[in-house]
Amino acid sequence: MKIAIFPGDGIGPEVVEQARRVLAALSLPGLKLFEGDVGACAYRRHGHPLPAETLQMAKAADAVLLGAVGDPECDGLVRELRPEQAILGLRKELELFANLRPAKSFPNLEHLSALKPDIARSIDCLIVRELTGDVYFGEKGRDRNASGDVVGWDRMAYDASEVRRIAHIAFDAARGRKRRVLSVDKANVLETSRVWRETMIEVAEDYPKVTLAHMYVDNAAMQLVRDPAAIDVLVTGNLFGDILSDQASACVGSIGLMASASLGARKTEFGTFGLYEPIHGSAPDIAGQGLANPSATILSLAMLLRHSLGLESEASRIEAAVEETLNAGVLTRDLGGEASTREVGDAVLARL
Amino acid sequence: MKIAIFPGDGIGPEVVEQARRVLAALSLPGLKLFEGDVGACAYRRHGHPLPAETLQMAKAADAVLLGAVGDPECDGLVRELRPEQAILGLRKELELFANLRPAKSFPNLEHLSALKPDIARSIDCLIVRELTGDVYFGEKGRDRNASGDVVGWDRMAYDASEVRRIAHIAFDAARGRKRRVLSVDKANVLETSRVWRETMIEVAEDYPKVTLAHMYVDNAAMQLVRDPAAIDVLVTGNLFGDILSDQASACVGSIGLMASASLGARKTEFGTFGLYEPIHGSAPDIAGQGLANPSATILSLAMLLRHSLGLESEASRIEAAVEETLNAGVLTRDLGGEASTREVGDAVLARL
Ligand SMILES: CC(C)[C@H](C(=O)O)[C@@H](O)C(=O)O
Ligand SMILES: CC(C)[C@H](C(=O)O)[C@@H](O)C(=O)O
Repeated sequence: MKIAIFPGDGIGPEVVEQARRVLAALSLPGLKLFEGDVGACAYRRHGHPLPAETLQMAKAADAVLLGAVGDPECDGLVRELRPEQAILGLRKELELFANLRPAKSFPNLEHLSALKPDIARSIDCLIVRELTGDVYFGEKGRDRNASGDVVGWDRMAYDASEVRRIAHIAFDAARGRKRRVLSVDKANVLETSRVWRETMIEVAEDYPKVTLAHMYVDNAAMQLVRDPAAIDVLVTGNLFGDILSDQASACVGSIGLMASASLGARKTEFGTFGLYEPIHGSAPDIAGQGLANPSATILSLAMLLRHSLGLESEASRIEAAVEETLNAGVLTRDLGGEASTREVGDAVLARL
Repeated sequence: MKIAIFPGDGIGPEVVEQARRVLAALSLPGLKLFEGDVGACAYRRHGHPLPAETLQMAKAADAVLLGAVGDPECDGLVRELRPEQAILGLRKELELFANLRPAKSFPNLEHLSALKPDIARSIDCLIVRELTGDVYFGEKGRDRNASGDVVGWDRMAYDASEVRRIAHIAFDAARGRKRRVLSVDKANVLETSRVWRETMIEVAEDYPKVTLAHMYVDNAAMQLVRDPAAIDVLVTGNLFGDILSDQASACVGSIGLMASASLGARKTEFGTFGLYEPIHGSAPDIAGQGLANPSATILSLAMLLRHSLGLESEASRIEAAVEETLNAGVLTRDLGGEASTREVGDAVLARL
């Protein structure tokens, strides 16, 4: 079992450090860890935010645990060298086509949401975002029109095979949940969405026990605020998924607790290759001060153990320990407490 | 002064009727009204959701007041004949490039929002959505890829002149408000967004007293939930605007109260040509029962008088009368009351 660890920038190294302690406490036999540079730190050391050796290390591993990427000092760089581009590069090169984001409120933390507590409390959905297609990786460019004005353009596209594989991820996930898939598109306007919708309907035939519903993205953005409890598994394209998954996180409220998995096409000996990371950013303003919340990274590690290493019971143990830590009131500043990054790590370890 | 009135489908005729009574009560000298068919009703009578005579009537008017469009009975029609396509047709043919949606909570109605009352109460923003460009009206199509899979694609694009004119609308509006423009894009991924952002920065130079900030769309979707009070004027493209404006409406809560203006490029004798409509849909489930809330249509009429006919004091009078009606507790079912569509109309008329 090989895990590549990329601590990244800002608070990345601090939060990853606590996940590493949790991992060590499990004493998994035959586990090998590798550490690589990605993001601003990689740019500074190697001149590129995604060095070839980092990519190689990821490809040779069963899973990647990532801290966070991004640094305001790098804002002046040309686009291709910006730390955030490393994220897109990893997704494309590792074919990480399925982004899974559970959005569920934690007990006693509903007050952190901007939604009314009873609505926040009711949220328990899984956002499944396609991650390697859509307008993200299509052709793009700049021309001039007849009047001499600059025109910026991007090609949005999905082919049926791309939709099919993300559909299977969503339907498979729904089988272990409330068996409802909500596919979000803009089929009243976009041809890309019409292929998306037709393919979803086609794949649904393989899952007679799961119900499929469709919703336009504008309506979905309303429903996520008005009645998020009605959503079980929401599956959508890369661009709409970028927007709706962040909106769902905001509805839950406690972003410092939200984990994510980006699964690839490659199967490993123990499961599916994937990259795991907290959904929060590198938070440069609080980096290095021991204030960051390591919970989302620790929960991302749990997802890694589950999906890439087939270690369900270890994953559940970690999740339970994090929940108990929260219940015990060991909270970092973002959750209204005063615990340090390391104290949260200690508390989780003590409950493992 | 010529106003074209298109009642449309579902609850459209009922809510428009009350707006028409309010308009009549103002006894505006020289006002001429015309009535046209659009949507499912037009499809049934003329075989097309946007008949040529309707379009002609709109073009000859200073402003259009629209009820709502859409009918589930028409769902089986080919796309071009679907009632909703009439909306896109009107936007394109009338060059309605600027959609304005004030999002503000009404006193004593904060409980209708899913957001906590103090957060809902703090919302007071204007969403400015570009309405004739982006991936909505670009080339689109279907091909097959090398493996024989169908590919759906759409071209997203903005040229600088399209961005420039919507930027001016946003900056001009900000001058009469808190003088802050938030431009929302996805410039870390899309070339379309990079042209958008550069052009916004260029136009901002003409408005030294207005501050311009930029935000990625995923972050904006979070901020609209977490801290909507921080937003004054939010300007964005057609696709992101479709999503964020509906999300903002959901945050306010009382969709039955929300009006919109879609301004065109053409100047009229008294202001700017525009189309005005409530943001709610045709609600076929409650059509014809006198349950619909006419307030959003009456408030859309107020926007019409202000922007297209230069009648600011009449517009303000109507807005005050609607607010007083709400304060007096004359509420339709969607707002928790029992008043009928006509009773709300009566109450507004009595307070005019
Ligand atoms: C950094 C950026 C390119 C990325 C995206 O848009 O996918 C981010 O917003 C995310 O959601 O992981
Ligand atoms: C009906 C549809 C094409 C339209 C849009 O996407 O613009 C609607 O959602 C709107 O916002 O007015």
